[in-house]
Amino acid sequence: MTTTELIQSLSWRYATKQFDAQKKISTETWNAIEQSMVLTPSSFGLQPWKFITITDSKVKEDLLAHSWNQRQVVDCSHMVVMCAKSPVVAADIDTWLDRIAEVRNVERDSLAEYAGMMHGFMANLDEAATLSWAKHQVYIALGQLMATAAVLDIDACPMEGIIPTEYDKILNLTDSGYVTTVACAMGYRSADDKYAQLPKVRYDHDQVMANI
Amino acid sequence: MTTTELIQSLSWRYATKQFDAQKKISTETWNAIEQSMVLTPSSFGLQPWKFITITDSKVKEDLLAHSWNQRQVVDCSHMVVMCAKSPVVAADIDTWLDRIAEVRNVERDSLAEYAGMMHGFMANLDEAATLSWAKHQVYIALGQLMATAAVLDIDACPMEGIIPTEYDKILNLTDSGYVTTVACAMGYRSADDKYAQLPKVRYDHDQVMANI
Repeated sequence: MTTTELIQSLSWRYATKQFDAQKKISTETWNAIEQSMVLTPSSFGLQPWKFITITDSKVKEDLLAHSWNQRQVVDCSHMVVMCAKSPVVAADIDTWLDRIAEVRNVERDSLAEYAGMMHGFMANLDEAATLSWAKHQVYIALGQLMATAAVLDIDACPMEGIIPTEYDKILNLTDSGYVTTVACAMGYRSADDKYAQLPKVRYDHDQVMANI
Repeated sequence: MTTTELIQSLSWRYATKQFDAQKKISTETWNAIEQSMVLTPSSFGLQPWKFITITDSKVKEDLLAHSWNQRQVVDCSHMVVMCAKSPVVAADIDTWLDRIAEVRNVERDSLAEYAGMMHGFMANLDEAATLSWAKHQVYIALGQLMATAAVLDIDACPMEGIIPTEYDKILNLTDSGYVTTVACAMGYRSADDKYAQLPKVRYDHDQVMANI
């Protein structure tokens, strides 16, 4: 992709306020978006997350009441709820090491140094700090999701204005080991969304960027 | 960009362990990467961040000692340190409203409802929760940065293994209103980086993805 195309895509995107409820993301495109979520980088590769996509109208309606009635939840094509693993425990590290050994066809023992680093890192975090770390990883996924949506000409609306504990109840996450962290409605902008026409506002380059 | 191209780019990327210290990112490409950071979406659009790029060899060397001696810090072309605003205060909301009014050429009064939402949101967060929120936004930027680097064929290594307070000292951030949160080394992989050849490991699609 050229730099010009990239900047065009990132300038084209905006937090979509009104989706065209009739337009659905194709299976092929959606599969790519799911694949891009799977490929999201994370600290140590641990992927302390789960991504739940809701297309069921009834469930979307249930979520709406706990989303400050933002209509994007029901009008979007695919509603993604991004969850952090909680708690993350030492056994999760072992599961991850098993996975690496399996995919790369190496002995678990050859990963001992890496294992030690991860266990050492985790041992220094209490439960709250571990959850905070896991949520950071989920936000990497949100950033990657919005960027990849933009380059695929898919609209998105990131949503922090949700009530996570209520989402957890509706999505049967309570005591599941995952907690709702943030959401992102995906689909196609409505021709009536006046926000699509507004100039994008960012601080000047020099206000947010420094070079040393 | 096609879905196939996107997945190829995201599969091509990896956390680069060894950069080619001789290969530098061109000015044109770097400008696009900075522009993509400027365009990163954030909660309410508040952009509670600053991105510092270090190309100075001496400063990179100083950072190395506080980066678990990961050589990416010095061998990369551009070292990006991503900082969260701290504290974020009510005046930041007003600055942001001024900026919106300026760019969109509207009266500040026309933004009263939006202003009320933001002030209400912020009033409910104590200082620690506000910092946590700001850091989440920085991680969105990290996610977007890694994804945009990948589609531009630029290598990146996200780095949580740094000592933020030491970075703050070296970068003169102490008491600046910004705190080092995470870093990302950018450049070109070395032909010798054996990690580039390893199969990418992720959990199976169905382990991280659910559909309702």
